[in-house]
Amino acid sequence: MTGIVYLVGAGPGAADLLTLRAARLLAEADVVLHDALVSADVLALAGKAKLYNVGKRAGRASVDQRFICRLLARMGQRHKVVVRLKGGDPHLFARATEEIEACRAAGVPVVTVPGVSAGFAAASALGVSLTARGVSRSVTFVTPAKGRGEAENTHWAEAAAAAETAVIYMGAGEALRVSAALIARGVPSQRPVAVIESASSPEQRVLRGVLADLPELAAQMGVGPALMIVGEIAASARAALDIAEAAA
Amino acid sequence: MTGIVYLVGAGPGAADLLTLRAARLLAEADVVLHDALVSADVLALAGKAKLYNVGKRAGRASVDQRFICRLLARMGQRHKVVVRLKGGDPHLFARATEEIEACRAAGVPVVTVPGVSAGFAAASALGVSLTARGVSRSVTFVTPAKGRGEAENTHWAEAAAAAETAVIYMGAGEALRVSAALIARGVPSQRPVAVIESASSPEQRVLRGVLADLPELAAQMGVGPALMIVGEIAASARAALDIAEAAA
Repeated sequence: MTGIVYLVGAGPGAADLLTLRAARLLAEADVVLHDALVSADVLALAGKAKLYNVGKRAGRASVDQRFICRLLARMGQRHKVVVRLKGGDPHLFARATEEIEACRAAGVPVVTVPGVSAGFAAASALGVSLTARGVSRSVTFVTPAKGRGEAENTHWAEAAAAAETAVIYMGAGEALRVSAALIARGVPSQRPVAVIESASSPEQRVLRGVLADLPELAAQMGVGPALMIVGEIAASARAALDIAEAAA
Repeated sequence: MTGIVYLVGAGPGAADLLTLRAARLLAEADVVLHDALVSADVLALAGKAKLYNVGKRAGRASVDQRFICRLLARMGQRHKVVVRLKGGDPHLFARATEEIEACRAAGVPVVTVPGVSAGFAAASALGVSLTARGVSRSVTFVTPAKGRGEAENTHWAEAAAAAETAVIYMGAGEALRVSAALIARGVPSQRPVAVIESASSPEQRVLRGVLADLPELAAQMGVGPALMIVGEIAASARAALDIAEAAA
């Protein structure tokens, strides 16, 4: 029997930022292949599924993408409901294209289920909008990270420099290169920035400064996934702590 | 008594693309101020709340933003749980900055709750990733729409032209201007595009073509909210219909 593979966004971290649809699919799933970053609280929703951790983490030994693609397609050929659970949203920096193509090549239907991307949780942590009338009508999500064998190019830097608000994924380990690339493309070194680690989780941390400080700010972050936001909107950011305290 | 105002993302349309947190807050809410685009299914989750429709729609008589800000702050001063429910995610093209500032000025704490933005639901409708190794490491969300009294500028077009994938919100009514602005900035007139109306809802429609066709494609859309996606990733888009049928 051939089932269906669902590429599902697990949201930014907090279990209650999962969508209702994702929660339902997890409850129905026979098999779940999940990223390393998906929390135990989220995985607990997959009551009857066999779980496979196929997570990759920067700088660590990781599961090969081709292996994940093959495993996913094979599971889709053997089980009714297969959930491929990815941190954030599956359409953004999630290698979805390879996995969709592998499933289709194996004759397995694929459906994607959008989720809350970490950039939006980072904005929530800052207590600011990514766009603002008169300040920003453009938000760019980029990553300087590239895959093995992928040709280097600087489109990501040009796109980030052209946007009024730039949200940089998987770049905190390369903050010096990111900062230099943006300044070289004319972004003012005094433009406000924020670095947000583990947005929406209990370990959430926020640091603010200006673009020239970005390497120093990023170096203060821990091992959680960190995003960098560059743009005037970061200037009006308040640390989420006082807001969270008021809400507690 | 002063309560808390929650700016909550209602997701792209389908009620089950709401987050678990949003559903819980709606159930607890004393008052809900909502956009016109939020569906009846979503509003039904606000079992005990008094509902206020403060929706604005392009080209129609609309509720003034200053009025919404005043009403929201006043509600926050009088009720325990006030939900301001916005289509998509509240941090993107949602006038959140004005509403956050109005509440804070009135001494009312504000918490934002991220949601699934329509751009991700549009990618799901197309069955493609917005990013892809070797094809796109940058996605820009822009709008050509500007507020009354806001100075015209072309940053949105520059940001969209610099990105490998551009997602254009609230621009289908100005597709001719959008297409011309991108082509004038060097985007190839044959770059693949897609127009997605009412992403994730039963009325969802998808049309594909190239940038030069964008005005013609947009003109075929109905009255639902429409997004335009420009980039090579649109070339691998399959209409969601066959996928949805396989899943049914």
